Amino acid sequence: MLSVVLVGTGNVAHHLFSAFRYSKSVNVLQVIGRNFNALKPYSNEVEVTTDFDKISEADVYLLAVSDNAIQSLSKKLENKPGLITHTSGATEMGAITNSNRGVFYPLQTFSKERRIEFKDIPVCIEAENEEGLNILKKLGESISGNVVEISSEQRKKLHLAAVFVNNFANHLYHIGEDICEKEGMSFNILKPLIQETAQKIMDLSPFDAQTGPARRGDTKTIEAHLKLLENEKQTELYTKISQAILETYEKEL
Amino acid sequence: MLSVVLVGTGNVAHHLFSAFRYSKSVNVLQVIGRNFNALKPYSNEVEVTTDFDKISEADVYLLAVSDNAIQSLSKKLENKPGLITHTSGATEMGAITNSNRGVFYPLQTFSKERRIEFKDIPVCIEAENEEGLNILKKLGESISGNVVEISSEQRKKLHLAAVFVNNFANHLYHIGEDICEKEGMSFNILKPLIQETAQKIMDLSPFDAQTGPARRGDTKTIEAHLKLLENEKQTELYTKISQAILETYEKEL
Repeated sequence: MLSVVLVGTGNVAHHLFSAFRYSKSVNVLQVIGRNFNALKPYSNEVEVTTDFDKISEADVYLLAVSDNAIQSLSKKLENKPGLITHTSGATEMGAITNSNRGVFYPLQTFSKERRIEFKDIPVCIEAENEEGLNILKKLGESISGNVVEISSEQRKKLHLAAVFVNNFANHLYHIGEDICEKEGMSFNILKPLIQETAQKIMDLSPFDAQTGPARRGDTKTIEAHLKLLENEKQTELYTKISQAILETYEKEL
Repeated sequence: MLSVVLVGTGNVAHHLFSAFRYSKSVNVLQVIGRNFNALKPYSNEVEVTTDFDKISEADVYLLAVSDNAIQSLSKKLENKPGLITHTSGATEMGAITNSNRGVFYPLQTFSKERRIEFKDIPVCIEAENEEGLNILKKLGESISGNVVEISSEQRKKLHLAAVFVNNFANHLYHIGEDICEKEGMSFNILKPLIQETAQKIMDLSPFDAQTGPARRGDTKTIEAHLKLLENEKQTELYTKISQAILETYEKEL
C-alpha cells in the first residue's frame, strides 16, 4: 500500500483524490491547503491541515498546485523521507529542490463540475532514479491503464501540444458559438460536428482527416467567408489558420 | 413515398445514399455522375447514368456536387417537375436557376471511409415555398431527428462556424501530432484529451470551458511555450490564438 499526502485543493487535486479513493493500493493520508474552506470537502474522509509543520510522513507527496508555487512548497518538504512530486506539464522536475523527486502528470483537462474516468488518461511519469520511477508507476497504474515514462523535455512539448488541441480548439468552439448566436442559431447545432471532428482522428491521422476550403485550395469560398466575418480578431484567425492549412497541403494541390 | 434522384458521387452523395437506403419513406430512383467508375458502387442497387438526357422524373433532385457545379447542373434540370435542391453550406439557394428549388444541407464532416449515424446530424433545410419546405422536412426526417429550417444567410454563417470548429480544430490536432512526433511521442497520447475537450462542451459553454495559460493570463508559460516552438507558422498561430483568448477574458483578469 502506497501512502500519499496531497498538497493542493484545485481541479487536479480534486480529481486525483477522487480517483485514489477507489484504489486498493493507494491510501491518501492527508490533504494540505492554504485555505481552510477549500479543505472542507475532504475533511470528512481524510485528515486535512493548513499547517505545513503538521505534514504526515508518506511514501509520496503530490504537489497539485499552481506552477509558480511548486518550488517554494517543495522546500517545505525537504526534510521528508518520501518521494516529492509535482503534477505540472509545464514545469521541470528540477523545480523540486529535494533530490528524491519526480513528476506525476495526468494529461487531461480537469473541471470540478465534470466527472472524469481516469482509466484512459495518460499519466506521464518521471523520476530521478529507478526506485522513484517504480513508485510512480505503481501510483499511476492504481488509477490509469496508460502510464508513460517521459522526460522533462518531452513533457514540456506535450504540454505545448495539449494547449493546441485543448485550449485552442476550445477557443475555436467559442468562435463557432459566437457566430451562431449572432445569427440567432443555437450552438447546439454545431455539437454533432464537433463530436465527429474529434472522433474522426481516433482512426484517421489529422493530416488525412483534414477537409474544408483551405484543404481544397478553394480561394473563392475563403474570400466569401472573409466577407461574412464581422469581427477583426476572427478575421485574423481565419486568415492565419487557412494559410497554415494551404501551406500544409500546397504540394498536393 | 418520396422519389429522389441523386446527382453526384462524392462523400455527401455516398452518405446520403446509404442513409436513404434504410428509409421506408424515401426511394432513390437514380444516381447520376460524370464518371462511370464512380457510379459503379451504386449500380447494383439503383439505376445509374452519366447522361443528363436520361434523368428520371422524381419528387426531389439532390445536387450533392461541388459548389461551382451547382448552377450549371441545375440548368440541366430546369424542365423537370420535381424540387431541385443542393446540399451545400456555402451556396445560396438562388444558385439553382429553377424557381421550384430548395436546400438540403446536412451539417457534418463526411469521409468515405467512416460510417456516419445520420439520426443526430442537423439537416438544415430551406425552400422557395411552403410545399417545398414540407417535402424537404419529410425527406430530412426520414434520416435525421434534427431537421432545422434556416435561411441562406444563416446557412452561410453556419458553414463559416463549421469551418472554425471542424476544419480549423482538425488543423490544431495536426499541429499537436507534429509536435509529439518530433519529440518521439505517439499522437495517441493526446487522443483522450481531444475527446474530453469535445465532450466538455456538451454540458458547458465553450466560454466557461476555457482553460490554459492564456485563459489565466499566465504570460510566463506563454513565453516558455513560444521559446519551445521551432516552427514559424506554429509560433504565429500560438501567438494569435493566445491573444484572442487573452482579449476574450481580459475583463475577468
